[in-house]
Amino acid sequence: MNDDLWLHQALQQAELALPLSSPNPAVGCVIVRDGELLGQGHTQQVGGPHAEVMALRDAQARGHSVRGATACVTLEPCAHHGRTPPCADALVREGLARVVIACADPNPLVAGQGAARLRDAGIEVLQLAPEHPVALQAREILIGFLSRMVRQRPWVRLKVAASLDGRTALDNGASQWITGPAAREDGQHWRARASAVLTGIGTVLDDNPRLDVRNLPTPRQPLRVVLDSRWRTPPDAALFSAEGGVLVVGLAPLDAVAQARQVTLSAAGAQILTAPSQREADAAGVHAIEPASDPARGRETDRIDIAWLLPELARRGVNELHVEAGATLNGHLIDGDWVDEILVYLAPKLLGPGRALAALSPLSTLGEAWQGEVREVCQIGPDVRLIVRPPGRERF
Amino acid sequence: MNDDLWLHQALQQAELALPLSSPNPAVGCVIVRDGELLGQGHTQQVGGPHAEVMALRDAQARGHSVRGATACVTLEPCAHHGRTPPCADALVREGLARVVIACADPNPLVAGQGAARLRDAGIEVLQLAPEHPVALQAREILIGFLSRMVRQRPWVRLKVAASLDGRTALDNGASQWITGPAAREDGQHWRARASAVLTGIGTVLDDNPRLDVRNLPTPRQPLRVVLDSRWRTPPDAALFSAEGGVLVVGLAPLDAVAQARQVTLSAAGAQILTAPSQREADAAGVHAIEPASDPARGRETDRIDIAWLLPELARRGVNELHVEAGATLNGHLIDGDWVDEILVYLAPKLLGPGRALAALSPLSTLGEAWQGEVREVCQIGPDVRLIVRPPGRERF
Repeated sequence: MNDDLWLHQALQQAELALPLSSPNPAVGCVIVRDGELLGQGHTQQVGGPHAEVMALRDAQARGHSVRGATACVTLEPCAHHGRTPPCADALVREGLARVVIACADPNPLVAGQGAARLRDAGIEVLQLAPEHPVALQAREILIGFLSRMVRQRPWVRLKVAASLDGRTALDNGASQWITGPAAREDGQHWRARASAVLTGIGTVLDDNPRLDVRNLPTPRQPLRVVLDSRWRTPPDAALFSAEGGVLVVGLAPLDAVAQARQVTLSAAGAQILTAPSQREADAAGVHAIEPASDPARGRETDRIDIAWLLPELARRGVNELHVEAGATLNGHLIDGDWVDEILVYLAPKLLGPGRALAALSPLSTLGEAWQGEVREVCQIGPDVRLIVRPPGRERF
Repeated sequence: MNDDLWLHQALQQAELALPLSSPNPAVGCVIVRDGELLGQGHTQQVGGPHAEVMALRDAQARGHSVRGATACVTLEPCAHHGRTPPCADALVREGLARVVIACADPNPLVAGQGAARLRDAGIEVLQLAPEHPVALQAREILIGFLSRMVRQRPWVRLKVAASLDGRTALDNGASQWITGPAAREDGQHWRARASAVLTGIGTVLDDNPRLDVRNLPTPRQPLRVVLDSRWRTPPDAALFSAEGGVLVVGLAPLDAVAQARQVTLSAAGAQILTAPSQREADAAGVHAIEPASDPARGRETDRIDIAWLLPELARRGVNELHVEAGATLNGHLIDGDWVDEILVYLAPKLLGPGRALAALSPLSTLGEAWQGEVREVCQIGPDVRLIVRPPGRERF
């Protein structure tokens, strides 16, 4: 049997789960026997069935018995009772003969136990080598989930739209639109697959964006996260007019005004998260990143500690964190080396004086620069899209 | 007969002439009969044979008679006595039956007369439609020559190597190297095909570049042109250590010091070209471009008028003008809309504060931006190369 062919079909199924499954991993499953497709499926929204169960149901709906068949799955079947019963048990019960797994599950609740349960029941289990092309593709689809499980932090993808000379807006703030409709629509797909969209209070105050998924049917809106040390997010911000929830992260209010703002935001429907101040974080031994100097945005101590934030978001089930922010937060994240991937849309224009893509600390040698690797480059309408990642960043 | 196939082969021949033929057009010729290649050739260095004569000689060397054969040429054969006798006459004399021409020659000395001479001699002439893909490809190879003939100015190609955030150097000037060896080698090919390389005095004083073709066998070095209003080019500049000649363009010396510098530069081997001042140019009705304000580089009146310079370079036989300059001259050329094409090498790095790709006048709306069209995007080693051109700029 041509496993690779069916694994590719399982990958396509997994892609269908991308905008759907968060915080669960986006998994695809294909069940075949004698070169015939019996059933296929992908992870549904949280609380709904996983890929394996969807594929079994699909086979049943087509009138197929799956006894003696092979299941190709992009992630090791789960072996624990979560919101749904273990998928490994379902495969055993239905009498499958063979399971091909593209990617092992690092979730401590699974971690080899899914495969072990299958083998114990006499099912032949084939686990692809980690460097197998299908395993690598499966990892890319699962990257946020894997990051949360292994690194206890989300996969951080920073999205920017800039001119050829690296400007994201004119000095007067004009930025609509630098890139064309096709690039903007493409950007919506990346928002849709993210568990959360992160921005800074500067962007909220300047641009009042919604940051939800639009012009794209999506079953789930990402959580919008605002870094807002002093609780300045307006309670009537456009963020609140969209579904998916808003999480405002600030520092412990220093005065009654800030306290009142926090209460008002909560009443407006925001989830409130109070970050430890840098001093508290330092005292607690949290790794403190060197903040870029930025007099315009207030004192250094106003900074929310990213080393605290990311694990906190991971604990809240954020797999992929999609950043759409201004130069200040972008620079803060890049200077701290928190960015796992930059998604750049470049318009073939020159803007001259304007806003930078990221406010970075000055370098004294080129060797100190943030250095990525081009993973992909393509044209999207009149613009160019690059995906750039620090070398080896996806290997964890 | 499959004309397209042989025309493509003629295009390949023409490409071989690119680093060779300036100021003559880079032309390729293939002679075929009954599906058999009899001979092929391309334009040699100035004073040497043109493509048609090279192809006839090649056929002779292979022992073929070309009587009754078809010649596929990328440019209309010349009909005038220049440094060599007319190619149309050679094709008639050798008894060719048919000539397929990709691109008409706009040179007023040819302009249809080549085709007419062939037809008068009973040769069947097929001239491709201007929108034929092969005609368009031939035009791209001939773009500098066609620009000089039709627009009386060179095709201006601005080359930059920048980081993702549009920086060409750190604030301290460090720029070696932003891009990798593959991109730098690729840049040499573009220098090699240009008639001349243009830079500004700022780059000469800051970086002391040679701006010649290196690490690449080339039969001809481009002329290096320095815009140097006040004749500050050091007589021992690295420019003079390379072949191909140096042309220093400045304003009429205002004092004895500048006058002495001009004399010294001439003694060092530079060609000297004195530009009219902006006031003289204005008085002469030359289109004056709006100069970008740039206090660091001296008064506005120090600016050499590009509207005067480009026709002057065309008169000197410059087809493609390859610009490798700093932000000041780049900005001057872009603000004046003199740039026909930008060749950008983007490194997947972020440099933060540093030198801009071009010092441009501030805009108040995005609609005013210099707007190009992506003609090509590809990866070159770890970097990305984009070719960007104002829409329709090649149609003249």
